[in-house]
Amino acid sequence: MSNIQRLNTGVRLSDASIYNGTVYLAGQVPRQTTEQGIEAQTAEVLASIDKLLAESGSSKERILSCQIFLKDISDLAGMNSVWDEWVAKGQCPSRATVQATLNNPAWRIEIVTVAAQN
Amino acid sequence: MSNIQRLNTGVRLSDASIYNGTVYLAGQVPRQTTEQGIEAQTAEVLASIDKLLAESGSSKERILSCQIFLKDISDLAGMNSVWDEWVAKGQCPSRATVQATLNNPAWRIEIVTVAAQN
Amino acid sequence: MSNIQRLNTGVRLSDASIYNGTVYLAGQVPRQTTEQGIEAQTAEVLASIDKLLAESGSSKERILSCQIFLKDISDLAGMNSVWDEWVAKGQCPSRATVQATLNNPAWRIEIVTVAAQN
Repeated sequence: MSNIQRLNTGVRLSDASIYNGTVYLAGQVPRQTTEQGIEAQTAEVLASIDKLLAESGSSKERILSCQIFLKDISDLAGMNSVWDEWVAKGQCPSRATVQATLNNPAWRIEIVTVAAQN
Repeated sequence: MSNIQRLNTGVRLSDASIYNGTVYLAGQVPRQTTEQGIEAQTAEVLASIDKLLAESGSSKERILSCQIFLKDISDLAGMNSVWDEWVAKGQCPSRATVQATLNNPAWRIEIVTVAAQN
Repeated sequence: MSNIQRLNTGVRLSDASIYNGTVYLAGQVPRQTTEQGIEAQTAEVLASIDKLLAESGSSKERILSCQIFLKDISDLAGMNSVWDEWVAKGQCPSRATVQATLNNPAWRIEIVTVAAQN
């Protein structure tokens, strides 16, 4: 029997894989493929992270690291404006942000999260 | 004495670093530098991951997360066709895929893997 | 009370997040935004990593993985020349290097590090 827990396991990937108290989320992207601004897309991605962390027995206060990929690095200020309101005060995670082309041309942001369970 | 185990430690990097039951693999790329299609390169990279995980006391059923870098994001469907056949049914890892230029122009894919030991 | 330790927690991110003996550093970039060569920028980034690892109760001998982002992948040889002198002999980490555009046009390198505490 596996001591790995997984969430929403499909034929290709799981939304979360949990081992030894550490939660690894799949890269979260906007669900809507209509073109939105970076602020709306960031809010949507962060809401997905909140939801998956809750289902994993974790929360944004327990994030260890985020790797953020932006389609256009000039969106950093817009992304940060939403991030700064969302992030857990006094419990900000380690973070890195680089530019990368994502699979759907409408997506402006993807975030990969590692967190600790409660 | 270190409680970190490493595989194939050279002067620059190790192919695997293992600590506290968690296996961190180096980014795996195709060995052949002749231009191959994405399917052949993906198969080669996944075979390298299988081999290193076996040597690390792990296996594809125990992968926690994969970060996939594609030279051309339009290769995603071709990569997925090989991935979907390979991935452990019911034990798919968390995953993120973005486009990135790799060191060798002939390489179309690089995968960074984190897994749990058995 | 949290069992996560963090270093230099600001309003946006922490420089290090530590849980269960594992240290996650924020992406380290050169501090100087004047244009420097890749060798000088790599040395500066590696010194930042040394400092943060020391403050986290770790060291370069205990690095598990590094994800290296280069603004221009053709800087790989120059980066490696500094890396090879710096890296802990016999304790090289797992590593992956890809090209990515970074936030500041003057930055040629960013490194994301995961390490084990002593």
